[in-house]
Amino acid sequence: MNKISDGTLVSTRIRLARNIEGMPFPGHLKDEKQAKEIIRLVSSGLNRLDDFKLYYMDSISEWDAESLVGNHLISPNLIAKKRMSAALINEDSSLSVMINEEDHLREQCIVKGLQLRRAYDKISEIDSKIGKKIKFSYDEQLGYLTACPTNLGTGLRASVMLYLPAMTINGLMREVIRLLSKQGLTVRGVYGEGSEAEGYMYQISNEVTLGVTEEDIIDQVDKTARKITELECTERRNLINGVNSLAVKDKCKRAYGVVTNCARLTSGELVSLAADIKLGACLGYINIDDVYYIDDIVTKMQPYNINKAAGKNLSAEERDIYRADYAGSHIKALCDRENSN
Amino acid sequence: MNKISDGTLVSTRIRLARNIEGMPFPGHLKDEKQAKEIIRLVSSGLNRLDDFKLYYMDSISEWDAESLVGNHLISPNLIAKKRMSAALINEDSSLSVMINEEDHLREQCIVKGLQLRRAYDKISEIDSKIGKKIKFSYDEQLGYLTACPTNLGTGLRASVMLYLPAMTINGLMREVIRLLSKQGLTVRGVYGEGSEAEGYMYQISNEVTLGVTEEDIIDQVDKTARKITELECTERRNLINGVNSLAVKDKCKRAYGVVTNCARLTSGELVSLAADIKLGACLGYINIDDVYYIDDIVTKMQPYNINKAAGKNLSAEERDIYRADYAGSHIKALCDRENSN
Repeated sequence: MNKISDGTLVSTRIRLARNIEGMPFPGHLKDEKQAKEIIRLVSSGLNRLDDFKLYYMDSISEWDAESLVGNHLISPNLIAKKRMSAALINEDSSLSVMINEEDHLREQCIVKGLQLRRAYDKISEIDSKIGKKIKFSYDEQLGYLTACPTNLGTGLRASVMLYLPAMTINGLMREVIRLLSKQGLTVRGVYGEGSEAEGYMYQISNEVTLGVTEEDIIDQVDKTARKITELECTERRNLINGVNSLAVKDKCKRAYGVVTNCARLTSGELVSLAADIKLGACLGYINIDDVYYIDDIVTKMQPYNINKAAGKNLSAEERDIYRADYAGSHIKALCDRENSN
Repeated sequence: MNKISDGTLVSTRIRLARNIEGMPFPGHLKDEKQAKEIIRLVSSGLNRLDDFKLYYMDSISEWDAESLVGNHLISPNLIAKKRMSAALINEDSSLSVMINEEDHLREQCIVKGLQLRRAYDKISEIDSKIGKKIKFSYDEQLGYLTACPTNLGTGLRASVMLYLPAMTINGLMREVIRLLSKQGLTVRGVYGEGSEAEGYMYQISNEVTLGVTEEDIIDQVDKTARKITELECTERRNLINGVNSLAVKDKCKRAYGVVTNCARLTSGELVSLAADIKLGACLGYINIDDVYYIDDIVTKMQPYNINKAAGKNLSAEERDIYRADYAGSHIKALCDRENSN
């Protein structure tokens, strides 16, 4: 395994937008009754599959809602109109179908690493099953019809989440974003509110859905993700050999020192410190092999997941203490495990 | 041993100012020849004691000068007029005699902890020995005559270095300094350039030298140091039980994490981080028993001592790397030793 590239390809997401023929788009539904009829129709297509569970948005707790949004299984938009909407989610949370979001159906598959084809196959299987029960709005010329024209045609959005610390530190992301935009690809920072991506995380996805095949889209995103990974590896080598290598090494090692010793830790700090620890591991400054496990720890310690991890409701201060303890001991264990090998 | 008070009483310094009868004060010497004559006179009184070494200020290297000043064995003032001045320093550097600083003789003893009486006895022994060879300027009414009237009488300055993190954090130092000033005592921050004492270090000393006995001075400084230590202990308990205890614990533990993991470290950072590590040890948050040893590490890693510790001349960057490595591994070893007990 080429350690220098570790952690770059974080996850893959495929999303399909579908609507039911003869039904007004969710934004134009007559009443709640019509909305519930759609929910019934869609879920009946999947109900036979044991591992999907139906969540009515008006009957889930605020905490469940927060957790589902945080883990990207539903959108905040779905909750905003909760008396009309629902979601089908499978057991391992890799598959979800939002009902009555912007479109009648938003089918999604999330998997780890770069697996666009696999994710597409998985969600297509669900799409076919539902398609046997429901007739989707489809036009021979245009393809799948969607509420917003940006999704017309394939209704497909293929996204890859990338961890790009070296390209960020070396100031290349602005140029990369500009170049990808010319090729019809969008780049978004993942955690941050501002323009700077927190945790060096970026999501790359196709902008164009019309006039191209599903194959074209998946191919383009896949090739781009691989190309960017190569660029990131080059920049990581440049970091190791560059004039700022000591500063980078110092920053990474301090991040490890802080996370493994602190008495309290906010989720924002953990995102940013974990990003530096992962970089330290990739560059060989910190002896941790499984950098993806650090992502799992960070996700588990997010505000929308931490109560579940703790098995009880924690106050804000208790969360910061629990997070410091959990993240610190688990990341330290990763390092100790390597050191004892 | 009462751990809560650990580290408070850092060191004791006794200084005597003396001048030679019939000689103009150093600021009024005729020429270098007269200055050298004084150096000869003074050192002849101590030459028989094996463990004193004479350093002419105009013949020591810049580095030795820096090291002697840094370790408080001579003053920058002594180097400023190096063609006229010298210093006698004993082997363990506990005793030093500056020759032709502001006065003909500035005799000093520095020892660890609070040992005013012992330090006074040690320097008095040297003073007597020199006094057998040289007649000091002495007035029956005034006592010892000195170049500056602030030293007239006893010529004695008794100082104690105190580490006062809790009183500093709880904002009590301003009031303490005001009260001590009313009692004729001066308080100075030790490292910092500004008004804030770096490393929570303060030096307390007598301002009055005239119209009091040596006993009075030593008694007053000793009682004050003990009283302040009690106050500091109370404030440390308040820190543990106060609303900011988690913040304090977090700060101390992070300081430990940074020092034991960083790849480079400036001396200023080490002073400040070590101060927090010591506090964490005193409050029971970090498992280190011998906090005084941390002071030794910090001193060793100061710019004026680090080349000696490394055994070679280091560039600025090399120093920061060496300091990170040395301080980190030694402080970690202190903690590991305790954890394995």
